[in-house]
Amino acid sequence: MAMNEEETGSIVFRRKAEYSPPRSFRTWLIGRPLPTADAPHQTIGKAVGLAIFASDALSSTAYATQEILVILAAAGTIAFGYAFPISIAIVALLAIVTLSYEQTIHTYPGGGGAYIVARDNLGEFPAQTAGAALLTDYILTVAVSVSSGVAQITSTFPELSEYRVLIAVGLVIFITLINLRGVREAGAIFSVPTYFFIAMMLLTVSFGLVKLLTGSLGAVVDPPLLEATETAIPITAFLILHAFSSGTAALTGVEAISNGITAFKEPRSRNAGITLIWMAIILGVFFLGITFLAGPIHAIPSEQETVISQLARTVFNSRGGLYLATMAATTVILVMAANTSFADFPRLSALLANDGFLPRQLAFRGSRLVHSRGIVALALLACLLIVVFHASVTQLIPLYAIGVFLSFTLSQAGMARRWWKVGRLNPGQEVKERGSTLRFENGWQPKLLTNGFGAICTMVVMAVFTITKFIHGAWIVLVLMPALVGLFSAIHRHYRLLAGRLSLDQYGTPSRIARHRIILPISGVHRGTLSALHYARSLSNDITAVHVSMDPEEAERVRNKWETWGEGVRLVILDSPYRLLVEPLLEYIEEIAEKRQPGEIITIIVPQFVPQRWYNNLLHTQAAFLLRLALMFKPGIVITDVPYLVE
Amino acid sequence: MAMNEEETGSIVFRRKAEYSPPRSFRTWLIGRPLPTADAPHQTIGKAVGLAIFASDALSSTAYATQEILVILAAAGTIAFGYAFPISIAIVALLAIVTLSYEQTIHTYPGGGGAYIVARDNLGEFPAQTAGAALLTDYILTVAVSVSSGVAQITSTFPELSEYRVLIAVGLVIFITLINLRGVREAGAIFSVPTYFFIAMMLLTVSFGLVKLLTGSLGAVVDPPLLEATETAIPITAFLILHAFSSGTAALTGVEAISNGITAFKEPRSRNAGITLIWMAIILGVFFLGITFLAGPIHAIPSEQETVISQLARTVFNSRGGLYLATMAATTVILVMAANTSFADFPRLSALLANDGFLPRQLAFRGSRLVHSRGIVALALLACLLIVVFHASVTQLIPLYAIGVFLSFTLSQAGMARRWWKVGRLNPGQEVKERGSTLRFENGWQPKLLTNGFGAICTMVVMAVFTITKFIHGAWIVLVLMPALVGLFSAIHRHYRLLAGRLSLDQYGTPSRIARHRIILPISGVHRGTLSALHYARSLSNDITAVHVSMDPEEAERVRNKWETWGEGVRLVILDSPYRLLVEPLLEYIEEIAEKRQPGEIITIIVPQFVPQRWYNNLLHTQAAFLLRLALMFKPGIVITDVPYLVE
Repeated sequence: MAMNEEETGSIVFRRKAEYSPPRSFRTWLIGRPLPTADAPHQTIGKAVGLAIFASDALSSTAYATQEILVILAAAGTIAFGYAFPISIAIVALLAIVTLSYEQTIHTYPGGGGAYIVARDNLGEFPAQTAGAALLTDYILTVAVSVSSGVAQITSTFPELSEYRVLIAVGLVIFITLINLRGVREAGAIFSVPTYFFIAMMLLTVSFGLVKLLTGSLGAVVDPPLLEATETAIPITAFLILHAFSSGTAALTGVEAISNGITAFKEPRSRNAGITLIWMAIILGVFFLGITFLAGPIHAIPSEQETVISQLARTVFNSRGGLYLATMAATTVILVMAANTSFADFPRLSALLANDGFLPRQLAFRGSRLVHSRGIVALALLACLLIVVFHASVTQLIPLYAIGVFLSFTLSQAGMARRWWKVGRLNPGQEVKERGSTLRFENGWQPKLLTNGFGAICTMVVMAVFTITKFIHGAWIVLVLMPALVGLFSAIHRHYRLLAGRLSLDQYGTPSRIARHRIILPISGVHRGTLSALHYARSLSNDITAVHVSMDPEEAERVRNKWETWGEGVRLVILDSPYRLLVEPLLEYIEEIAEKRQPGEIITIIVPQFVPQRWYNNLLHTQAAFLLRLALMFKPGIVITDVPYLVE
Repeated sequence: MAMNEEETGSIVFRRKAEYSPPRSFRTWLIGRPLPTADAPHQTIGKAVGLAIFASDALSSTAYATQEILVILAAAGTIAFGYAFPISIAIVALLAIVTLSYEQTIHTYPGGGGAYIVARDNLGEFPAQTAGAALLTDYILTVAVSVSSGVAQITSTFPELSEYRVLIAVGLVIFITLINLRGVREAGAIFSVPTYFFIAMMLLTVSFGLVKLLTGSLGAVVDPPLLEATETAIPITAFLILHAFSSGTAALTGVEAISNGITAFKEPRSRNAGITLIWMAIILGVFFLGITFLAGPIHAIPSEQETVISQLARTVFNSRGGLYLATMAATTVILVMAANTSFADFPRLSALLANDGFLPRQLAFRGSRLVHSRGIVALALLACLLIVVFHASVTQLIPLYAIGVFLSFTLSQAGMARRWWKVGRLNPGQEVKERGSTLRFENGWQPKLLTNGFGAICTMVVMAVFTITKFIHGAWIVLVLMPALVGLFSAIHRHYRLLAGRLSLDQYGTPSRIARHRIILPISGVHRGTLSALHYARSLSNDITAVHVSMDPEEAERVRNKWETWGEGVRLVILDSPYRLLVEPLLEYIEEIAEKRQPGEIITIIVPQFVPQRWYNNLLHTQAAFLLRLALMFKPGIVITDVPYLVE
């Protein structure tokens, strides 16, 4: 293998010219390893970006309408008339949030998720809160989207409904594998179906509207039964707000692009911003269209058949080709919506890990340049939710969106605070603050207004959520989030403490090693033991060999042989009346360690049998291995394995 | 803790005066550890010896008759008349084997199982064959006895029959726990039920005979259905021999005492011999009695109800108290029969392990002075058989007894050969051969005759087995046995090879350590790394620090810090374009190891993070641990772990 070496003083750099990764099952499954140098090329254009980052937002049109109707149903079908006005309010909220995020994207071209914006402008605690909120919601996005996708499948093929948890878990595994291969390939795979969904939805909605105008749109034939409530409750403001809360699930995913700006081709901010606005427009149109049409066709919210399915078969008048195409497109986009989280969750957790709030391992890029550990963690957590909530969207929805709206609020509040500070600077002045640079800008006032108004709106919505969905499951999230923030802090404390203890700032000259004491446990006297003794003697003159005796005759043999071969080194024979091996040795070592003087180092030299084949290990008591496991985590004791037969 | 120290030259003996074992679940389950010094007290008298070692032999009366009838049933009920003559032949064989073994017990007071006798008189290969045969049969004894015990239970309570595999496995676990506590306690627990069984069987058989003589013994009321064979086959010599083969299962367990002589109180041989003869007499009487009575009552062999159950309820005229007592006694003795194997299997496997034919670990005595690993191995294998053969005695029986008769043959052939050699010596002459001493004895001719005749008889019986039971399952044993012998040889080869390579016989003066080269992998430059560097510098001046670089910026930082703190030691930075850590390091180390000169030692010093709490490990990549796992089994490379923050 060609090797490139470069030497400066005592430092040598070695670079490898070529590398052929081994062929393995892993390579077959997720592709050959990619060198770090390939990383910058893995960026995407607007069209692919829309496909990847918009699927979450767009796909929520598949369940948002239905979840509004589910809540309204408690007051009887008469309440369904409120669905469209509610959806108009939600789309207004969407417009506010979109404008607000568009500003963020331009301010943070390096990726401006709620976590970064909150960290730079509000401080550590709000940042951790935003991080916890987003991570929670990414997991829920996977669970909700996949569950809704499975609901589309079981609407089309009711006989599959008993397997829905199984199908959902299988889909999560499938998405996981695709993501472990890396983002570009994922994008290429996913662009076709996203555009297919957009086409089919446009067709369904516009065809429905045309039929409605021409008077040929009937009601749903053979609709699912409305799950009966004992007595219809009255239509109250609380009910309307509750329905509104559930419907805001449509807004989840809008923030995806702001987290993933770095994935876009240059000019990043511009590309990302345009993609965001397009996404919001498509989302608004579909959501309004579907909710509007649900009224005249008398769609019924049901776990048996989704509203989308009822709409499509009514518009297309049959369960024929166009119906099947619409259902397929909806299913696929929902499954791919989960993919948005698979792009963002690992990226955010790597960010948190780099800042020392999550285990460092999450920042590591795997062989395909993706944060593979984050991907796997997300998959496991989402599968857990799917299993616990039986892949039911209606059961999952109360947990959903709280995190997203909390992060919306923090992000926009952070932006508002930023504009406020920018406005107080003199023209041309620059201030460095928390790692980001503030620079005076003209026209900061409308920006402050936009972000501030956005923050207030989303905060109000979040309060509405908390109240209306509390008993239905929102409390779980409200317990989980502080727990997560607590965990982040604990991890951060650990890393900071360790960094302090390892820091070289206060490091003086190291204390002289005054005494180097060696303990050499031996099971018998043979070439292996003597190799170790030989090695020990090359390190120090202060050596104690130790034999644990379970059998007086064996001890006598060891003693006699040691007198011949032990080179005068002191041998301690420890009596072990209960035939224990490791325990007496540990006790002896601890006794010596306690009496240690300053500048004294203790090294345990363990003769280690090296088998020719791994299964030969079955024929040997793994005493050396057990001993080293027991000693490994004892501070201040050095452990050395000398293999038998060192030549 | 009081400690007793004694010093002679450079040797120090340390003895502990007291020890209080920790209280734990394990202690609660199997009792507190026993010191080695307690070992000799764990011996037993004749009465307890009969209870422990006879249960296997006696309990076979519970199924031997039935298994004869099962085979004869193929020719219709008319063939049942042959059962009693067959049982007489089997009892005659029992008498021959017993006399033969009685001689062995006196010649081998230290334990004269087939393995030892064959080893001393026939050589290594026959000894290994005997060992394999016996181990196989001990496992089958457990499976057959426990299965038959469960069959007694389900005869009494038919509603339990669907749980029979579960009950059988539960019973094996129960016996295992009792045996892990140690042999004396097992004996005390088991003597009561053995004598209870003897009493109940005596009562059943004698009561049955009295009723028969007085003409009041009727047929079985409401007998189980005879499983129909299409057409009855004719009564052939083959059928009779097949029935005889199955019936010889009654003889299994006769060798148990000869393996366990050392468990008896002094005078060992006498006590063991008397116990053996008593056992044979009781066994013969019961077997003849049961088989004889099965005729007049028209007992039917069946998986639904055992012959013992049919006999007991016919003799006692009801399913009342005496019936239940008989069934309970039979069940308990069968379960305890398995205990015989639990006494002998671990003892034999420890013997084989000491001779280097099985892994050494099997020779280790656990905290309760029993060979606990052998006990656990037996339990696992027996459970496997029970599960595979659905706890059915009739399915297990074709595999059974072949091993026993093979070991009978080898043992008696060995004894015969011994007498032959003894006879050729001059009076008073002594010859040492294969570790045992041959001494001229008067009256060697009848002894040679007894053992020789025994060997021929059992060999003929074994041939009959092999032919009649081959297709029913005996082939499994005939495949397994050579495989086991092959395994023994392979293990033996390994130990001998290793002993040769470790032997000090040809060991000259060790070669001088000419160069001590140290490689120090570092992830960064901090106090932990510097501790390791400090330690390394105390060992050698030839040190190379190695940093694997996944990130050029990080490499630059490490390089700069090293120039300040590295004390002039050479640092190699390995470029890792695929973000691998362990692999580039391993490759580098191997490259250096290949270029090693004679007398050069390579030591890898790994800085090891020592967490304060185990879960802190979750926050660190376990690179040091992975590296040491990869290096552990590389010959000729010494690995040293230096914990962070050595003071």
